[in-house]
Amino acid sequence: MTNDSWLKTSIMTRRGVARGDIGRRHELPIAAQGAFHYVYGPYAKPVLTINPGDVVVVETEDAFGGVIKSEQDSPTAKLTFPYLNPQCGPIAVNGIEKGDCLAVQIIAVETRGEQPAGTTCIIPEFGGLVGTAATAMLNPPLPERVKKVHVDKSGVRWNDKITLPYQPFIGTIGISPEIEAISSLQPDYHGGNMDLPDVAPGAILYVPVHVKGGLLYVGDCHAAQGDGELSGVAIEQRATVTLHIDVIKGWSFAWPRLETENFLMTIGSARPLEDAARIAYRELVRWMSGEYGFDEIDAYMLLSQAARIRLGNMVDPKYTVGASILKKYLV
Amino acid sequence: MTNDSWLKTSIMTRRGVARGDIGRRHELPIAAQGAFHYVYGPYAKPVLTINPGDVVVVETEDAFGGVIKSEQDSPTAKLTFPYLNPQCGPIAVNGIEKGDCLAVQIIAVETRGEQPAGTTCIIPEFGGLVGTAATAMLNPPLPERVKKVHVDKSGVRWNDKITLPYQPFIGTIGISPEIEAISSLQPDYHGGNMDLPDVAPGAILYVPVHVKGGLLYVGDCHAAQGDGELSGVAIEQRATVTLHIDVIKGWSFAWPRLETENFLMTIGSARPLEDAARIAYRELVRWMSGEYGFDEIDAYMLLSQAARIRLGNMVDPKYTVGASILKKYLV
Amino acid sequence: MTNDSWLKTSIMTRRGVARGDIGRRHELPIAAQGAFHYVYGPYAKPVLTINPGDVVVVETEDAFGGVIKSEQDSPTAKLTFPYLNPQCGPIAVNGIEKGDCLAVQIIAVETRGEQPAGTTCIIPEFGGLVGTAATAMLNPPLPERVKKVHVDKSGVRWNDKITLPYQPFIGTIGISPEIEAISSLQPDYHGGNMDLPDVAPGAILYVPVHVKGGLLYVGDCHAAQGDGELSGVAIEQRATVTLHIDVIKGWSFAWPRLETENFLMTIGSARPLEDAARIAYRELVRWMSGEYGFDEIDAYMLLSQAARIRLGNMVDPKYTVGASILKKYLV
Amino acid sequence: MTNDSWLKTSIMTRRGVARGDIGRRHELPIAAQGAFHYVYGPYAKPVLTINPGDVVVVETEDAFGGVIKSEQDSPTAKLTFPYLNPQCGPIAVNGIEKGDCLAVQIIAVETRGEQPAGTTCIIPEFGGLVGTAATAMLNPPLPERVKKVHVDKSGVRWNDKITLPYQPFIGTIGISPEIEAISSLQPDYHGGNMDLPDVAPGAILYVPVHVKGGLLYVGDCHAAQGDGELSGVAIEQRATVTLHIDVIKGWSFAWPRLETENFLMTIGSARPLEDAARIAYRELVRWMSGEYGFDEIDAYMLLSQAARIRLGNMVDPKYTVGASILKKYLV
Repeated sequence: MTNDSWLKTSIMTRRGVARGDIGRRHELPIAAQGAFHYVYGPYAKPVLTINPGDVVVVETEDAFGGVIKSEQDSPTAKLTFPYLNPQCGPIAVNGIEKGDCLAVQIIAVETRGEQPAGTTCIIPEFGGLVGTAATAMLNPPLPERVKKVHVDKSGVRWNDKITLPYQPFIGTIGISPEIEAISSLQPDYHGGNMDLPDVAPGAILYVPVHVKGGLLYVGDCHAAQGDGELSGVAIEQRATVTLHIDVIKGWSFAWPRLETENFLMTIGSARPLEDAARIAYRELVRWMSGEYGFDEIDAYMLLSQAARIRLGNMVDPKYTVGASILKKYLV
Repeated sequence: MTNDSWLKTSIMTRRGVARGDIGRRHELPIAAQGAFHYVYGPYAKPVLTINPGDVVVVETEDAFGGVIKSEQDSPTAKLTFPYLNPQCGPIAVNGIEKGDCLAVQIIAVETRGEQPAGTTCIIPEFGGLVGTAATAMLNPPLPERVKKVHVDKSGVRWNDKITLPYQPFIGTIGISPEIEAISSLQPDYHGGNMDLPDVAPGAILYVPVHVKGGLLYVGDCHAAQGDGELSGVAIEQRATVTLHIDVIKGWSFAWPRLETENFLMTIGSARPLEDAARIAYRELVRWMSGEYGFDEIDAYMLLSQAARIRLGNMVDPKYTVGASILKKYLV
Repeated sequence: MTNDSWLKTSIMTRRGVARGDIGRRHELPIAAQGAFHYVYGPYAKPVLTINPGDVVVVETEDAFGGVIKSEQDSPTAKLTFPYLNPQCGPIAVNGIEKGDCLAVQIIAVETRGEQPAGTTCIIPEFGGLVGTAATAMLNPPLPERVKKVHVDKSGVRWNDKITLPYQPFIGTIGISPEIEAISSLQPDYHGGNMDLPDVAPGAILYVPVHVKGGLLYVGDCHAAQGDGELSGVAIEQRATVTLHIDVIKGWSFAWPRLETENFLMTIGSARPLEDAARIAYRELVRWMSGEYGFDEIDAYMLLSQAARIRLGNMVDPKYTVGASILKKYLV
Repeated sequence: MTNDSWLKTSIMTRRGVARGDIGRRHELPIAAQGAFHYVYGPYAKPVLTINPGDVVVVETEDAFGGVIKSEQDSPTAKLTFPYLNPQCGPIAVNGIEKGDCLAVQIIAVETRGEQPAGTTCIIPEFGGLVGTAATAMLNPPLPERVKKVHVDKSGVRWNDKITLPYQPFIGTIGISPEIEAISSLQPDYHGGNMDLPDVAPGAILYVPVHVKGGLLYVGDCHAAQGDGELSGVAIEQRATVTLHIDVIKGWSFAWPRLETENFLMTIGSARPLEDAARIAYRELVRWMSGEYGFDEIDAYMLLSQAARIRLGNMVDPKYTVGASILKKYLV
């Protein structure tokens, strides 16, 4: 469990209902979840209702629902669209409603299950360097391929020569739209399948709420991922996710935001990719001007010199970009 | 009611369960509809259940739910997101299920209500030549403006000097996804807010079905529209829509298709716009090669010489393109 | 030679230096051209200098420089990048300079050379439905294929069953940028490889001029082409092009414009495709407001109801879109 | 001057003609340059001819040609399109020709001139969050604004409270295309206006050569820049640039590459932004498979877990992305 002292000065602690206090601990194991969800929407009943400040420990399935068990499995044969990327939840939070913000501090993302615990693969007509359902091409597809890798805290053993750093994060997390039910494969204003490596232990995710209770969904953890999730698939894994949850009343904005010790980030998802970056950057300008006293054009000019971009995914139905600014400049 | 002789040779007549026969006539007036829908999804109960071959006469609201009543009304003040673009239905069809195709012959789209019956307007941060929620900009928005126009069969009276031809069509129509509930503002593989002027009397729309009963929704008729629906708003109107509906068993494909006397069209919706065109064109290649005996590369090469593109919208959450080929070349 | 009476009221006749008069006739046969050009720029010497009102008859090569002579030829083996799409010219016009407009009335585009006079083909990594140099993919390419077709005024004989209408036009035409030398494969603000079927007999093209003399280039005629030039290749042909050329002093704008008997069109080239449409539409708004008395927002709203879009190409380094409005609405 | 020991193992040292040796030192002060260039092309005569291994010290102008001298200056009034972003050179290198690679080790980029030495500004219709010439909008533009900042090695003094780190780099650098003359505002396969902060002291840039002598151009240095150069303008500055130049015979590829102590990067420039990322990533796959023994699909899968993306610019005529992989994984 992280215990960083910076949390005391976080927006979550300063403005949340629970003021940083840790409430009751809830467990949501696979068995308790029952059926998984494949859309983010208001049409499912909560599996759990918690109070602001509570901690939830959720067991998540991998993005394939665990069906790709060996390197001999065919993704095409095993996967059934649209029942991909199973999500846990929804979790309702007492006292939250439209116009409020759900704060989710990510305490831990721990790999779960037998080794090799990590899976990646090539799925035909999916990925950043192939023709897809949307970028429709006549070219022949790439061949399917599955790779299973040993994953533990010491790293992701890609092969005998290469071990990648273990940098687990949550690929898909967010809340229910007001009336839409959005595929768990898609990121959007509600969060969802952002595949953004910054959504990791040490960060707090802020998501604007559209329905009473918020209805938090979570799933799809990765043990490691490159920028853009190029082949469409990260090191997919089952995980145990520990979240500290709070409510910020009356804090409303358009797209998910993220806070770490050192920076604030806004997150946009759209196609083409420049629109995802535009959304993230405009939200950052608005945050700086709305809450940190910047003139809007000054903020725009400063970001031009000092902002950083993180490419989450360039493979999902919308692409995801995080734009960040160091907190030390928000003076 | 159209009575074109070509209908006898249409795909709908040749392959539909009803073989072109006209069944029972159903009325779905505003009063019977009750609450409108703002998503296309499987979570609403059918307002009507019909048999293949039946005709349905539906009264639709305009895209604003009728609240923009005068040129002095402020769209921003009157409209409440996401409760825009109200849809009638869903209408269930007996005997249709996932893997089948719903055929919708558009018999009539008739302007309804008091004059001036047509409305168009400028909505801030919406439209093809302004910064929007997705193509996020810092520029100041355009001022709001509302224009009410007299509409009848003789034309749309833009002003004293300009009368535009009356070319009514259905802006938003489609069926329920399997598990998603998609905003009625968005076009996608299920149809929806395509804003494609070819979806007009004289055409048959074919949509692949994802749930038992199909669950047809319809709304948002236009009295006239330019290619791309540039400002984001056409000549919006209330209408009475007459549809002849049939079921083609076992005809499954990915995106909506359309047939008229002279051409076949495939419809793609995506961003960026080239992806919408790619989808439409790949679907047309697949249709030609799958059902008309073309070698896939021959089809591709022929379309390069003989296909036509219709730009539906370049303003909605996805842009819509129709790609067509004359039937006389499908020999 | 066309002789349409509408020409008397054209912008070219009303505002051109020559007032519609036909001046001297110049011939620019292949032999006189000498070396072809593969860039549009100010660094080549004019092959011909003419006066406003003169007519020029130019023999153009096909886009392949004539090297694809049989269906057994390999495009990859025969074509040498960047020496593709050979252009005739440049032709200098006396009395034109930066800030003026070059008016080019297209009198005739006549197929030239032995039968089969038309060529189309599949070139690996080029086309609208394949991975390309810019939309970079890892998929295997399509196989090469060459198709030679008989072309005459009665049509393009695609095969025994399909004859396409003969609709010849100029694929590549434009003037020199001020300092850039732009590949003849690319369309842009200077014209170039627009592949827009409206650039055909019966139309007048207006191009803003950047250098003294204007420096007109022309090449790459097509006997027929579908919207978007899907495979990247139309019915390519050698042609004899007859152009009537004039100068409109002090008429300056940003992108090529086109006039026919019935409509005015603006032409934009960009990626993504929506930017090409945005450019074309904004130019049309500006034309209507700058020269026809429209309030800018009125023009925007009217185009939303009455404009038409023509997709030139979706395969070149920039995509090309024409946006048009009927002249009868410009009242 | 950097003197890093890793350079001994760099590609430049291992494969270059000069084998890492430092040759003659050439000075190219402003006075010796004479006229600046505003296109990258083969039509200008070299100002300097050097040998492989030589060092060149170049004085560059800022992107505005130094005309924005105070915060009261109007960019619109002072700047004259297309005479923006003045470039020094071209510098010819003996013994290099088409098919070879030019290696440019960046030894130093030093701020030059009177304080305040840094300039940034808002230019109407230019930037990442405003309508532009390509993403054409009808919205009113942002107001012009100029900001002059003190720049030295201790930092960029944004204001009394914020000092940004001094991270100088070269915004525009590259070689001549074969026949094109490309605006110095544009990045492309030849390098040019990439605005990529990794092109900084400590890096070696590799550019494929298209003409005899290579013809190196350089200009447009920045003292600091955020990812994407959001407002279109970085901390623009005059600089003295020290480059160590070598030739790698017979090393040919499609897009610029970059090497640092720790990573290899490929650079793509295109619109939409995903195409820039696709280019960069495909080039990285090709580099890994062509020179480091990776199976192409293995490389693709590994990049999906371990690659990093740097957004250079999202404001120039093409957007620029660098994709990198740590050298330690290339085993």
